Amino acid sequence: MHVTYELAEQAMAAAIAESKKIGTQMCIAVVDSGADLKAFVRMDNAWVGSVDIAIKKAKTACFFAMNTGQIGQLSQPGGPLYGIEHSNDGLITFPGGVPIVDTDGVLIGAIGVSGSSVENDHQVAKAGAEAIGVSDLPEHPWRT
Amino acid sequence: MHVTYELAEQAMAAAIAESKKIGTQMCIAVVDSGADLKAFVRMDNAWVGSVDIAIKKAKTACFFAMNTGQIGQLSQPGGPLYGIEHSNDGLITFPGGVPIVDTDGVLIGAIGVSGSSVENDHQVAKAGAEAIGVSDLPEHPWRT
Amino acid sequence: MHVTYELAEQAMAAAIAESKKIGTQMCIAVVDSGADLKAFVRMDNAWVGSVDIAIKKAKTACFFAMNTGQIGQLSQPGGPLYGIEHSNDGLITFPGGVPIVDTDGVLIGAIGVSGSSVENDHQVAKAGAEAIGVSDLPEHPWRT
Amino acid sequence: MHVTYELAEQAMAAAIAESKKIGTQMCIAVVDSGADLKAFVRMDNAWVGSVDIAIKKAKTACFFAMNTGQIGQLSQPGGPLYGIEHSNDGLITFPGGVPIVDTDGVLIGAIGVSGSSVENDHQVAKAGAEAIGVSDLPEHPWRT
Repeated sequence: MHVTYELAEQAMAAAIAESKKIGTQMCIAVVDSGADLKAFVRMDNAWVGSVDIAIKKAKTACFFAMNTGQIGQLSQPGGPLYGIEHSNDGLITFPGGVPIVDTDGVLIGAIGVSGSSVENDHQVAKAGAEAIGVSDLPEHPWRT
Repeated sequence: MHVTYELAEQAMAAAIAESKKIGTQMCIAVVDSGADLKAFVRMDNAWVGSVDIAIKKAKTACFFAMNTGQIGQLSQPGGPLYGIEHSNDGLITFPGGVPIVDTDGVLIGAIGVSGSSVENDHQVAKAGAEAIGVSDLPEHPWRT
Repeated sequence: MHVTYELAEQAMAAAIAESKKIGTQMCIAVVDSGADLKAFVRMDNAWVGSVDIAIKKAKTACFFAMNTGQIGQLSQPGGPLYGIEHSNDGLITFPGGVPIVDTDGVLIGAIGVSGSSVENDHQVAKAGAEAIGVSDLPEHPWRT
Repeated sequence: MHVTYELAEQAMAAAIAESKKIGTQMCIAVVDSGADLKAFVRMDNAWVGSVDIAIKKAKTACFFAMNTGQIGQLSQPGGPLYGIEHSNDGLITFPGGVPIVDTDGVLIGAIGVSGSSVENDHQVAKAGAEAIGVSDLPEHPWRT
């Protein structure tokens, strides 16, 4: 199941609103459950380098149905997933990418945000995801 | 000078409206004058393969301040730009990408559209560009 | 909607049977509606170079919901899609890739075959697709 | 000597059975001794991001006739193979890829598994490899 354009726009609007609320300039990407780009915006004055990072964060969160920051904890030197960033044409494994899961526990896509501190990036991504679904579902198995 | 987020959204909205008017499902990308992605949408049921093509059309039109179809005429076998598609991580040189030039004759970005016939793609891109500038300016030198 | 593993295996089995019937050695790839690999086999003595071609044919057919050979007719020098192969990390636009559409007219994936003449490749791909859906649907709009 | 299609299917079936036994959804790839893809399956609900990782694990194990986890121990910061992941279009060096060696001590291919914890990935890969050969052969020189 895929995030629709309408849902993607709602997630995008919520993320932009959150970004403005905390005074940041973000790149924001939404992908569907196949990790293919559905919507993207670069706010004025956002870093040009954040274009690719936002898209890769969204893809990474979708690829593994996990917050990018969680993957980053596992991919540190000595960790079980060290070097996973070399897969899938490059992952980004620090915070700012979160999966989007619908009320049936199905992964419908993901959102990636880049442009500020990783804490702010994650906060904005979470605001976007939660406008149309949930991003933290420990009790549900996520299905793709 | 760069297309702003507000202008990019206006171009996007005009392109989406034109796409709906002619009954097509498009991927639409707007880049700034540095050819960096500013906004993107994939309408529902648009081809997945059009994501990359729309973005590459926008970049190609911006890279050379020219409609992608014009470049394609020059890149045919035997033509002066034969093989130019191998540059810049891949160009798309058939119609659907148009530069966006402001009223001072300055290139402020470009828009790329993919999802239907190349005639429709070009028509939708032109509608997007002309919402915020002009796309055909033979008498002006384009400045970047 | 995605092709399931069970359906992918059925398509694969039908394609292998067709390949044996005509005495060829094929690489066969099935992708889901997001153009992501679902199943792949390389029959004994199939060309090593066909691995990538079979996968790219399946992706190409899925990207544009069209037989790869149809795209190839449009991408010849002077044609409207000349150079489209430069998109999406490389397309293959000669016959052997066909979309898979279910009875509701929804694109559920695609199959790509490489290893013999393009006529044989197409025939084997079609046999695989038709084991689980249809590949030619002129009267239906294909939805993704 | 190469793994045949028949052997690859036996390894695949054993890996799928092991995966089901422990309740996981895996991507599983088998490569021959040239590290070229021979067979691949993505079980339903397996992560999309695991497609590339399973294939890269199989290739990595074959490239160096070693479990991917062993290479990962050598590629840590300060280790002798630090950064080896940058070679060969990207390696994966955490557990889940194992070589397949026949009873004569000849490397005939490798299997890579991704979709769960690295312990589970390795267990499923080992089950696949041991259906058609051995995966741990300290006393034999491996020949390629």
